[in-house]
Amino acid sequence: MQALRINAKRLWDSLMETAKFGATSNGGITRLALTEEDQAVRDWFRAAAVDIGCTVTIDQVGNMFARRSNRTTGFSPIAMGSHLDTQPRGGKFDGVLGVLGALEVMRTLQEAAYETNAPVEIINWTNEEGTRFAPAMLASGVFAGVFTTEFAHSRQDHEGKAFGAELQRIGYLGSETAGLHELVAMFELHIEQGPILGAEGRTIGVVTGVQGMRWYEVIVFGQQAHAGATPMNLRKNALVGAARVIDAIDAIARRFAPDAVATVGLIECCPNSRNTIPGEIFFTVDLRHPSDDVLGEMESQMRTVLRAILEPLQLTFQEKCIWSSPTVAFDPKVIQCVTRGAEQAGYRARCIVSGAGHDAAYIARVALTAMIFIPCLNGISHSEAESATFEDCAAGTQVLLNAVLEFDALLGSL
Amino acid sequence: MQALRINAKRLWDSLMETAKFGATSNGGITRLALTEEDQAVRDWFRAAAVDIGCTVTIDQVGNMFARRSNRTTGFSPIAMGSHLDTQPRGGKFDGVLGVLGALEVMRTLQEAAYETNAPVEIINWTNEEGTRFAPAMLASGVFAGVFTTEFAHSRQDHEGKAFGAELQRIGYLGSETAGLHELVAMFELHIEQGPILGAEGRTIGVVTGVQGMRWYEVIVFGQQAHAGATPMNLRKNALVGAARVIDAIDAIARRFAPDAVATVGLIECCPNSRNTIPGEIFFTVDLRHPSDDVLGEMESQMRTVLRAILEPLQLTFQEKCIWSSPTVAFDPKVIQCVTRGAEQAGYRARCIVSGAGHDAAYIARVALTAMIFIPCLNGISHSEAESATFEDCAAGTQVLLNAVLEFDALLGSL
Repeated sequence: MQALRINAKRLWDSLMETAKFGATSNGGITRLALTEEDQAVRDWFRAAAVDIGCTVTIDQVGNMFARRSNRTTGFSPIAMGSHLDTQPRGGKFDGVLGVLGALEVMRTLQEAAYETNAPVEIINWTNEEGTRFAPAMLASGVFAGVFTTEFAHSRQDHEGKAFGAELQRIGYLGSETAGLHELVAMFELHIEQGPILGAEGRTIGVVTGVQGMRWYEVIVFGQQAHAGATPMNLRKNALVGAARVIDAIDAIARRFAPDAVATVGLIECCPNSRNTIPGEIFFTVDLRHPSDDVLGEMESQMRTVLRAILEPLQLTFQEKCIWSSPTVAFDPKVIQCVTRGAEQAGYRARCIVSGAGHDAAYIARVALTAMIFIPCLNGISHSEAESATFEDCAAGTQVLLNAVLEFDALLGSL
Repeated sequence: MQALRINAKRLWDSLMETAKFGATSNGGITRLALTEEDQAVRDWFRAAAVDIGCTVTIDQVGNMFARRSNRTTGFSPIAMGSHLDTQPRGGKFDGVLGVLGALEVMRTLQEAAYETNAPVEIINWTNEEGTRFAPAMLASGVFAGVFTTEFAHSRQDHEGKAFGAELQRIGYLGSETAGLHELVAMFELHIEQGPILGAEGRTIGVVTGVQGMRWYEVIVFGQQAHAGATPMNLRKNALVGAARVIDAIDAIARRFAPDAVATVGLIECCPNSRNTIPGEIFFTVDLRHPSDDVLGEMESQMRTVLRAILEPLQLTFQEKCIWSSPTVAFDPKVIQCVTRGAEQAGYRARCIVSGAGHDAAYIARVALTAMIFIPCLNGISHSEAESATFEDCAAGTQVLLNAVLEFDALLGSL
């Protein structure tokens, strides 16, 4: 359809250049939201955007919008965005690729003096990771009306520093009211953070939505006692009960194969002593499925399993759902633009549901949204070992360009 | 046989009076070895022993021997002893009862001007708990030739303070060479630290030995990955593997009922994050049985289970035995003295194997040894909630007196 090609080397150079802001000795990045490192990468990004003629505006939660102007046609912007903050000892690609890929698309459009029907924007969403200020996706959540600006400003890090004050300190407390910035569409390019594309030898994931997620906290109560002096038949071992539940929760997800996942990722044992029978076990449960109905059934089975396993062991428990995020279905028209963008570029693609949360999941509430995934090495992310290839980063960015132009052409045909 | 009766109230008063040295607000004691609190209780104990005519000597690892002289008959002393140090936020009875019960026996003998055939001694063993200076039972271990005096002196607490220097600082670095102090027998009165006596409504446990104990450390290796984006069939979840092993280890002990116990008391998950599949699990295993052969079979089954469970899950593991303590059989003649002592006093008794380690387990290598258990509330120890009744403390002390006199009579009949 069109012959615009992104510059793969320029993209890679940007990824590697900005990786110095918060670089770790093992090749990763520690760049938590609203730190000096975040400030430095924001300054770099703003300068790069201004350098190609973009106008950068900032809203009251620090979201950055770099707009390339166009003929005045009355359309709201087509956005491309993700986040520049990282996990502690995180990788060089999670989030960053979505912003710098968008920058590369913008540079390509600028270089070609390509005229779009709608303005095109790059967005850097603030505090996606949620590591420093919980919850995750805080500022895209404000943008989408899920949280208020006041709520965001009042979030504190573990040292008691507030989001609002830190935003001001690094110079990114903007004047634009969060959420009043209209978008017609948003494309987010991201690494998959899972192993599916790699396992199937595919280059592009056409993301059709984000699965539903529910988080639970469970405490199992037994009786702390001496490991040597307490016979087996008089024990109330909280860890044995928790262990059986952990196995059973894994089995629940397998009953709803292939799309369900269930994970106990965090466990704490009290008193956690070699020669003491555990009296109390705290653990978390993460259940996900692309269907909210199935998720409800998984939850119900988990609750059945807790009672069925723990009561015969004379253990008691508390269980509560602490977070629930319904499934997100991206817009079919925007998804179709990604599919066609991948076809045009000749990449092997497949539809995929995002297992992780993303800014796009919130933005889908207020704009036509879709995502593009590329493989990452062994599906690993949130780790210094996170890796994506030169070729795959370029492929994803080319598909991003193609998809944006597809969507722009749709607007033009209205 | 004889009409000597201990003074239950005097015993209880001593327990409560010394409980002020390191008293916690919740009714427990924090009296770690060689601290000011330990020094204070040692000073109190020495004064109380001197007050009834005992001679107190101290060896090079701080063990205190309070001897009541007798007609010179050529026998080495019959000792009664335990320890005055406690766990952090420990209870008022663990160890303390064995020393103050012995003091009460001595006071009763003195009051009655009772002439024994052998000298009688009270021993306060240093640093039984091992909380401040690892390992536990350090000074009785030196006495029994398990460790050298130099080894003991070089042990450091977490602030880097050495056992030898701290012993000197509190004034309890004695001149007597550790282990040269001959004993003909040693009786240790102690709370059970388990629930068996309480569950059966018995007052006295006639301890026939200490079970064998083996400690292991296991690490299960999987693949850390994103909990949302990694399908079940591509996971290597270290926690699911560890959970199955924990359940299987519990089952091994139940196969060797009623005497076997097996406990995973400590577990650590890496990275321990709600939305990350655990990549690595560290856990400890504590196996105990009164027979070393059975213990060997339990160990073998544990190793089989590790392979059988983890290999199909594509998990790898490391396992190593970090400590092995063979079974201890107490001396039948001394055990018989305890049995007869309980019969004379009219208490319901049963034979029992100690599940916990004690100074007596080491002393059994160098002297005829046995122990007397009394119930403790719900089997709880190493806790401020540790509790024993006035009546049970008195009962155990009466049996201690009776057993010492039984043994002394045996000596007299030689």
